Amino acid sequence: MKNTLSNTIAALATAPGISGLAVIRLSGNEAIDIIDLCFRGKTKISKSKSHTIHYGQIINSDILIDTVTISVFLAPNSYTGEDVIEIGCHGGFIISNEILELLYKLGAIVPEAGEFTKRAFLNNKLDLTQVEAVADLIHSISKPSAQLSARQLIGSFSKRLSELRQQLLDIAGFLELEIDFAEEDIQFLERDKINSKIKSTINYCNELLSSYKSSNIIKTGFYVSIVGYPNSGKSSLFNSLLKKGRAIVSDIEGTTRDYLEEYLYINDIPIKIVDTAGLRDTNNIVEIEGIKLVEDVLQQSNLIFVLNDISESKNNSDSLYNSISNKYENVYLLQNKIDLITLSNTNDLFLSAKTGQGISNLKEFIYNNAKISFQRGNDLLLNDRHYYLLNNIIDNLNQALNTLNSEFENEIIAIDLKDAIINIGKITGETWSEEVINNIFSTFCIGK
Amino acid sequence: MKNTLSNTIAALATAPGISGLAVIRLSGNEAIDIIDLCFRGKTKISKSKSHTIHYGQIINSDILIDTVTISVFLAPNSYTGEDVIEIGCHGGFIISNEILELLYKLGAIVPEAGEFTKRAFLNNKLDLTQVEAVADLIHSISKPSAQLSARQLIGSFSKRLSELRQQLLDIAGFLELEIDFAEEDIQFLERDKINSKIKSTINYCNELLSSYKSSNIIKTGFYVSIVGYPNSGKSSLFNSLLKKGRAIVSDIEGTTRDYLEEYLYINDIPIKIVDTAGLRDTNNIVEIEGIKLVEDVLQQSNLIFVLNDISESKNNSDSLYNSISNKYENVYLLQNKIDLITLSNTNDLFLSAKTGQGISNLKEFIYNNAKISFQRGNDLLLNDRHYYLLNNIIDNLNQALNTLNSEFENEIIAIDLKDAIINIGKITGETWSEEVINNIFSTFCIGK
Repeated sequence: MKNTLSNTIAALATAPGISGLAVIRLSGNEAIDIIDLCFRGKTKISKSKSHTIHYGQIINSDILIDTVTISVFLAPNSYTGEDVIEIGCHGGFIISNEILELLYKLGAIVPEAGEFTKRAFLNNKLDLTQVEAVADLIHSISKPSAQLSARQLIGSFSKRLSELRQQLLDIAGFLELEIDFAEEDIQFLERDKINSKIKSTINYCNELLSSYKSSNIIKTGFYVSIVGYPNSGKSSLFNSLLKKGRAIVSDIEGTTRDYLEEYLYINDIPIKIVDTAGLRDTNNIVEIEGIKLVEDVLQQSNLIFVLNDISESKNNSDSLYNSISNKYENVYLLQNKIDLITLSNTNDLFLSAKTGQGISNLKEFIYNNAKISFQRGNDLLLNDRHYYLLNNIIDNLNQALNTLNSEFENEIIAIDLKDAIINIGKITGETWSEEVINNIFSTFCIGK
Repeated sequence: MKNTLSNTIAALATAPGISGLAVIRLSGNEAIDIIDLCFRGKTKISKSKSHTIHYGQIINSDILIDTVTISVFLAPNSYTGEDVIEIGCHGGFIISNEILELLYKLGAIVPEAGEFTKRAFLNNKLDLTQVEAVADLIHSISKPSAQLSARQLIGSFSKRLSELRQQLLDIAGFLELEIDFAEEDIQFLERDKINSKIKSTINYCNELLSSYKSSNIIKTGFYVSIVGYPNSGKSSLFNSLLKKGRAIVSDIEGTTRDYLEEYLYINDIPIKIVDTAGLRDTNNIVEIEGIKLVEDVLQQSNLIFVLNDISESKNNSDSLYNSISNKYENVYLLQNKIDLITLSNTNDLFLSAKTGQGISNLKEFIYNNAKISFQRGNDLLLNDRHYYLLNNIIDNLNQALNTLNSEFENEIIAIDLKDAIINIGKITGETWSEEVINNIFSTFCIGK
């Protein structure tokens, strides 16, 4: 699938902004020719070796644009697999734009979103699981998700998939053997072996699938929602939880929906706290089914708190709690405003959002719930695409099992195995459709 | 002034944000040792040549953090003049933080603002005018200012100052000659020559100073303010001007004062348009002296428009116009709302902010006023510090001239010349005070 693209692309690879350094990436057959036209240094870049750095100036028809460093990566030893030039220029909003305008004038073109990484994929530098890992890594919001993405980028998932492929090839090997020895009537003994082999392969798929749920938590944070009647103190609790948090990621995009989501980090684990403003605007709180917005939040939640104003009555929110916990898992009743009453017994779930009493206990409660997803030997970051295709593979294998038990010919079982192998190819991108590829790369930024 | 700093600093050199690439810079004696502790590649960085790039992984006690490129710059051939390592890692908010945390754990320290460039200065890689050019370049808001800064960075101002120093040394040479030949009574002939030499040097200083006013315009934009009575249509005009503009720099920090400032780019020249909301909130508009805020705006303005509602009366704003134009230069009366009346004669200064009639003429009028500052062979970006010191040099030289004409001994004239030379040294940073240096570098960001 070697793919030679004749167009040379150029884009800012670093984030735009006021900074000491910005880096522009140029990739393609003409990258070296283009840089030779506008760079003035001790040596011509076309005479330079790969993986060397050159100091000099970018000149546009005798006008100095900037003093820069040029990093040279010759094909195939580059990110894209093509000739790549990285121009390290001064940061800010003007210089990199001027250099890019010049490069476009000299023949470079504006890449599509993700085109650098797409070329890396087309030139076999990365498979699709690695491509997805690049996007996950850049967008990661916590150390655990970054670490999983970094591992996936160097091939941890690819390795597991090649193990899966090996198991399928083993089964195919057994089938082959049977066909060869068909005359000798050793069929049923082998069929038992095939049966158990397929079953263990299905188990392996299920093992991979087990990271799917925690993958979402690791990628987007452990989702905690707070619901309750008006004036139960939801927003106070929300603020009280966040005030003490260490928001190491300040620029994550908020949602624009009708409820507030904020990240709280407890021991580097990202907790997404949701204040369901929606509930406050209706009188039909018990008819929770009717409130689509809260429904959405609850469905995504990994932990749900129903907040009760204990100064009204301890059992004031019981009907709300019951209706929610009948439908969802991990629902807890929290007693707020304990500063207004006298209590004989309290536990982790008694607090005062106003005075802060009980807040650190509540955080520990949240952390203990959240850390399970971040700790249980999870070593893959599965996304919806992987989930769908792994389930297809399980279907293919169950089908193969049925065929086997119905005592069809081995050749027919082989068809199901082939489908399973094609589905692995779809995960890694070995067998890919234009549509899937475009979908994946469209989530990238221009300079990647 | 060679300066060996034993502490190794590390910081993000690129802007933070979601991007393909981020670059961390490490500078100091231990840079190589530190990177050897956490980088795993084909070759050890300590065995690598300067200006080479190495592909591999950053590892924190066996945990993979990211796949990176390491660029090696060995002292003195680096930005700071020290050993410098640049780590090219994936962008986003987590990875670069994790790598930095690791580098700090391994012995690197957090730099002060501007410390990388400060080290470049202390190691004689850049003089102070070049250091200031780095800051100007990064913060530049237009091509012309970026181009001037880029030239200043490679030493255009330094060159002019060394010419100035040569002129002063020439004068000192004449004095020397006089002292040597004192016995032979050729003094007065030489004194004439010294006199004319000093005068031409003063002229040279004034020539340099001439770029001061336009430097400010080039750096911060040509400042156009719109004032007028309530409902004269100031905000409509403001919006109408901006709507058609090409705001290529969208992230420039706005001021938080009580008036609106926005940038409009006409042919790459930055025009800062100010809508003086302040005037709208008072009835004492003619008593312009009383309105401190508008006073501030008018004082900074390069062009002032007094906007009149012609549908009320053509002469409605004459008293306002007169009181402003008595005090400021470049004040023009603009007739707005020409769509509401029938006119026999119009010119560039008749318009309708509502229908857009006359707006493009007005823009051309603004551009023709602004371009002068951007075109008149201006080749220096002088800041307040340069302005102050060049004026001191002129004072020193005038003093020398007085001394000369009072027929004091040459040795006394030499004192004034020495002061002038010291002042040049203050511009380039050859003779510097801790306070000045700290002031300059405190405007830098951490990673520069």
